[in-house]
Amino acid sequence: MSDLEKCMENLIVIFHRYAKDDGDGRTLSKKELKKLLEVELPTFLKTQKNPKTVDCILQDLDLNKDDKLDFEEFLPLVAGLSLACEKCYVLHQKKGKQ
Amino acid sequence: MSDLEKCMENLIVIFHRYAKDDGDGRTLSKKELKKLLEVELPTFLKTQKNPKTVDCILQDLDLNKDDKLDFEEFLPLVAGLSLACEKCYVLHQKKGKQ
Repeated sequence: MSDLEKCMENLIVIFHRYAKDDGDGRTLSKKELKKLLEVELPTFLKTQKNPKTVDCILQDLDLNKDDKLDFEEFLPLVAGLSLACEKCYVLHQKKGKQ
Repeated sequence: MSDLEKCMENLIVIFHRYAKDDGDGRTLSKKELKKLLEVELPTFLKTQKNPKTVDCILQDLDLNKDDKLDFEEFLPLVAGLSLACEKCYVLHQKKGKQ
């Protein structure tokens, strides 16, 4: 398996590690999303000063308004954070070259 | 670093492994995209019967029509493939449970 294939597999496995806990096992409930954010994105969560961060993220991503996130609805969170991290990565690379 | 953080870091590192070869080092030229697809997504590439697959993917993803892909333009490819893989993953899990 290539590095990118492993990366996509990991993304799926991580999502389902939290989605399996309750409900239909295919989606993240608010409780499961909270656990995922606390365990997988602790640094991001600490930068958010709004105590309702989990609610806000759920509302933003929950396109069909069923109060849970399927994998398709979860992906924009990963994409958005990856994009922000990539901007930092490029800046650090530039600094390294100077 | 959490599993999801590692996953996002890998995504950035993989993209830049190919983007650094020519041009500005921040984007994938058609040649770099071709190499990325051949090395990282060989199984996907083999399922595509159109000989112009690389051109089609580039045209689809290249939102600002500069004939190259930045990381933001590249992400929908990863998201789309991950989503397709996740559907298979769920189907296999269901079969496993029967």
